[in-house]
Amino acid sequence: MRHVSYPPHTFDDLCTGARFESQARVVSREDIATFARVSGDLTALHTDETYAARTPLGGLVAHGVLILAVATGLAYELGVFEGTVLAVQSMEVRYERPVRPGDSLQLCLDVQALDARPRADRGRATFGVQVRNQDGRIVLSGAWQLLLRRASAPGGS
Amino acid sequence: MRHVSYPPHTFDDLCTGARFESQARVVSREDIATFARVSGDLTALHTDETYAARTPLGGLVAHGVLILAVATGLAYELGVFEGTVLAVQSMEVRYERPVRPGDSLQLCLDVQALDARPRADRGRATFGVQVRNQDGRIVLSGAWQLLLRRASAPGGS
Repeated sequence: MRHVSYPPHTFDDLCTGARFESQARVVSREDIATFARVSGDLTALHTDETYAARTPLGGLVAHGVLILAVATGLAYELGVFEGTVLAVQSMEVRYERPVRPGDSLQLCLDVQALDARPRADRGRATFGVQVRNQDGRIVLSGAWQLLLRRASAPGGS
Repeated sequence: MRHVSYPPHTFDDLCTGARFESQARVVSREDIATFARVSGDLTALHTDETYAARTPLGGLVAHGVLILAVATGLAYELGVFEGTVLAVQSMEVRYERPVRPGDSLQLCLDVQALDARPRADRGRATFGVQVRNQDGRIVLSGAWQLLLRRASAPGGS
């Protein structure tokens, strides 16, 4: 388990423009095989080395949704949401570049919008999401909307 | 491996309004644990039975991105994309209801838009996505944009 870089945040601890940078994580061949099994997506580009080597990509690539899954794991490790997230409401995701076994991914979250209206005990936060590879190139971008506990709510910090 | 209900489709085999209904798949406690490991998202609501039992949800729930991952696996089993998908470009996803261990999920895809312009050998298809549980209630909805091979392309049917 890597170090959690930030303490838990309630909705009220966030401000628009705040940025959070995760540690890096390598995506392995085994991660891709595990994800193929748990998702059931056995598309040859993700599971058949020989087939994948003959495509323009030249080898196995990670499922797009695996990149997204790794991004949520990096967000967990950041600790930004731990103990304060009530629900993930929606995600918009663009898959910008392929991710290959051995690539190292890093997540950047920035607070794009804060809406305190839903209920007194919770607010809706929109995070811009970017995942970069070891060359600093964006492989996934998008936005996530989450409901976060407010400081005034029971269990809030 | 369940029966693949539809033959492969190139871009040119699709028409706006076409619908594809998958088989059902149960999401198990083990699936949630496996997804927690591969994603790295160990949020207590997905991993700690005792904690989850004390929340308003009353027990463990699946990660939202696991529901999405299962949807891609059900799409794979439909065979709609097999051999013709060149890239998944983007996804919009709304998490509508929690999914609990033992819930059975079914995917419905419908062709919302077809754009033949990107290149002569490929077209962009937008699919509306709905995942329902065993009670017929929507747990995930959204849209996926994919680049699909055209019948005229090398390797197309």
